[in-house]
Parts: sequence; C-alpha cells; structure tokens
Amino acid sequence: MDVKSAIRTVLNYPVEGVRFRDITTLLQNPQAVRYCINQLYERYEGTNVEGVAVVEARGFVFGSVLAYLLNLPLIPIRKQGKLPGKTVSTQYALEYGKSGLEIHVDAIASGQKILVVDDVVATGGTLSASVELVVKLGGQMHECVAIIELIDLGGREKLAPIPLHSLVTFREDETGEYQTNH
Amino acid sequence: MDVKSAIRTVLNYPVEGVRFRDITTLLQNPQAVRYCINQLYERYEGTNVEGVAVVEARGFVFGSVLAYLLNLPLIPIRKQGKLPGKTVSTQYALEYGKSGLEIHVDAIASGQKILVVDDVVATGGTLSASVELVVKLGGQMHECVAIIELIDLGGREKLAPIPLHSLVTFREDETGEYQTNH
Repeated sequence: MDVKSAIRTVLNYPVEGVRFRDITTLLQNPQAVRYCINQLYERYEGTNVEGVAVVEARGFVFGSVLAYLLNLPLIPIRKQGKLPGKTVSTQYALEYGKSGLEIHVDAIASGQKILVVDDVVATGGTLSASVELVVKLGGQMHECVAIIELIDLGGREKLAPIPLHSLVTFREDETGEYQTNH
Repeated sequence: MDVKSAIRTVLNYPVEGVRFRDITTLLQNPQAVRYCINQLYERYEGTNVEGVAVVEARGFVFGSVLAYLLNLPLIPIRKQGKLPGKTVSTQYALEYGKSGLEIHVDAIASGQKILVVDDVVATGGTLSASVELVVKLGGQMHECVAIIELIDLGGREKLAPIPLHSLVTFREDETGEYQTNH
C-alpha cells in the first residue's frame, strides 16, 4: 500500500515556505491507517516493550491504537499545564518556536521499557524532550517511532543513540498533493 | 470491571475547589481500557456510523482505537491554528475559560453519519461546538460519546436533542482516589 500518497502536503504552513506533511488525509483512509498500524504491531509484538508513551496531540492517534493492540499501558506526554497530577517537565526547541512537555511522575516505573510514539519527526526536538522525560522517571528507552520522518532535518541524528523507526520519509523539497493553506 | 475505580480524582485542578477526574490512571490499565473500548465497539459495530470525529486532545485516545476497530475514517477536531488546511471554526465557552475549535472543510462529506468522541463531558461546551462543526459541513450526527459524564454540569441537556452516551458518571461532590496537584 502507498501510504505516502495518502499524506497531503500543505504549502506555507505553519510558516511561509514550509511544506507541511498533513496526516489528516491519511486518517480519513481506514485502509492506509490499518496498513500503518499493522506494520507497527508486527514490529513491537513479542518484544519486551512494557509501555507506550504518546506525544500530544497527534502522537495520541497511532500510539493509542498500538497500545491497545499490544495490551500495554498508555502514557501521555503533554504540553505544559495539561496534566492534573504531579509532573516533571522539560523545555525544548520546536521546528518553529519553543515549547514545554510534561509527564506524570507516577507514569513510568523504574526500568520499564518504553516505546515513544509521535506522528512526525522533524528536527527531533519533541521526541528528544520526550525521551528526556522517560529517562528522568527511570524508564528504559526501547526506541522512538514516527509515521513520517522529514529526513533533511536531522531528527534521527539528534535522537542517536536512541533508535528511530519511521514508516514514510519525505525530503524537504519533495512535492506531493499540494494545497495552499487559504 | 470497575472502570470508575481506575479513574483518579485530582483536587484543585485546573482551579481551586474542582475535583478533576483524571483518565491517565485508566490509560495505564490495559484491561480497563480494553473493557471501555469493547463497550464502545459493541455499541457502534453494525450501525450506520460512517466517520468518527475526535476532539483534541484526549478524545483522540479512545476515538482513534474505536475508528480503527470499526474501520472508519478518523476526523480530528482541533484547537484553533492546529489544522494545516482550510477550516471552519467556532468559539465556545469551557468549564473554565473560552476556546476555539476547528475542522478541515473537506473532513466530512454531505450526509455522512458522524459519531463525536471525547473523554469527558462536563458542561457540554466542547461537544456542542464539535457538533456545530459537523453540522456546518453537512454531516449528520449519530450521537456523542464520552468515557466520563459529570452529571451535575448539564452537558447532556445542552447537547439535546443530540443523544449522549457515556460509560461512567460522576457527581460533582463524589469522592474518589484523591491526590492534590502539588
């Protein structure tokens, strides 16, 4: 199945000159979603992963289904101020701007093997911050996984030595099904 | 299964005096998640629902799994500025504050039967706004569904005549496993 062709490219979002890879068109295609999920399930089924950490908000989509299928705890990593209990937090640089992420202090047990799931890896800032939170709580990183990897932006290198798995890659200059934002 | 006992109550979040019902403890319990999902799947399997709209961010969790199991398109309803394509939007009052929601204009086909999923219904402001967006695009509402219904806050009445289904109810003064925010 050609998952890539189900991903729409939106020009000039969130800032001028950027080609944004939009998974909402993929989400509207149940066969394409099922294909992605099956690939992820086959990769992690039978491994020693003990928890699936998901990054707000789009990471919740694929991560929740994967945790359900693997019958594993789902651990939300959220933007600052969204988790009600006691948290640890970290600041990080985004591809466009700056942000903070948090995790509940009791979300991960010491030594628990964690898979971190997001939809897209660009510079790797969000995933690196997520890994930092997992490690702060004593979790052990299995690997990071994203549906889309923007290979020119150095995310894989930034995350090393934590492995990154992705299903689809895009170069920055790569065309796609175009739509302008307005 | 006692799903309710898997939901933690956090005192004084997001504002003083509020008992916040926290699903993150439920998410850490795969058996409880599976029980909830099975209840939802049994309710909607074999119906004429044609799309699952999910409200950012916690609605993504249960809604994504449900859409996957039902083999239906997943339609994200997001906070303002998060969707890259052309959108319609609406403003609404929250239990604590005010916000805006958006949906892609091409996310729903005219006449498509839509189920709207969120985690918690309080005053019903978020779900009402979501219904408004579905209807603006010509979608037909099947019903709204939430894991938790805060029954003293009038959400069900606000949504009427759109039906609301919920799995667990809490009264405002109801105790639970307590934790303070700090």
